[in-house]
Amino acid sequence: MDRTEKVELTNMCIVRDGSRVLVLNRRDPNWSGVTFPGGHVEKGESFTDAVIREVKEETGLTISCPRLCGIKDWCGEYSRYVVLLYQTEKFSGMLKGSEEGDVWWEELENLPNLPIVDDMADTLRLLLEEDVGELYHWPEGEIWIKELK
Amino acid sequence: MDRTEKVELTNMCIVRDGSRVLVLNRRDPNWSGVTFPGGHVEKGESFTDAVIREVKEETGLTISCPRLCGIKDWCGEYSRYVVLLYQTEKFSGMLKGSEEGDVWWEELENLPNLPIVDDMADTLRLLLEEDVGELYHWPEGEIWIKELK
Repeated sequence: MDRTEKVELTNMCIVRDGSRVLVLNRRDPNWSGVTFPGGHVEKGESFTDAVIREVKEETGLTISCPRLCGIKDWCGEYSRYVVLLYQTEKFSGMLKGSEEGDVWWEELENLPNLPIVDDMADTLRLLLEEDVGELYHWPEGEIWIKELK
Repeated sequence: MDRTEKVELTNMCIVRDGSRVLVLNRRDPNWSGVTFPGGHVEKGESFTDAVIREVKEETGLTISCPRLCGIKDWCGEYSRYVVLLYQTEKFSGMLKGSEEGDVWWEELENLPNLPIVDDMADTLRLLLEEDVGELYHWPEGEIWIKELK
């Protein structure tokens, strides 16, 4: 019995330096705004290697010891889209943006004052609240419903 | 561009009560021994609902607030098998085994003295070591290579 499902695996990483976090002003016309670095897990790639690679590509920094702190997922009829959310305080290297967007260190508490991506508030709850571990989305007709779990 | 891959999604949960953990002596002939409760995530099911359901089915207990503490994955040529590892100290209900196997509370430090499943030592490292977040496996010819990351 085939128990597999079609899954699009991605990650997002909150790199912390004291009260500041590393942010990216993403230029993607479909999903623009201030967010955290991250991207796709390639087929065959370990989850850890993937998040280290994405942060390096988008910010120039080499992180280590990323820790899982939550999951966002969208369960459609034919596939599931998953974002594994990590955090770390360990990094080295020189900060450098990419064609994905500019990067800089921002006070965590100042994020709500910036042009953040749509679900940033929920992402921060996954990071900061012990009792919340997943932001689950499912379709009802034309719209997506979400629930923090 | 289709970025999905075929993934078999499962979970495992370490329910803690002080120095003790909830264990299951799994009868599965393909993977027997003392382990932690868990099982498959169903298509369309949230990750959180899945781990709560599996622990309920196998142990009778209702857990809440499961927190991610690691991932085990096996990256084959055609699909990826993923175990999301959770822990929680919050539970209610009466302990009761199932056809999957007997369940009981065991001192965490006594696990090595029991007939544990093969990769229990690595699972405990994912649980207990801050700097380890993934047990990644990939095939080389007929055998699986593993690396803690």
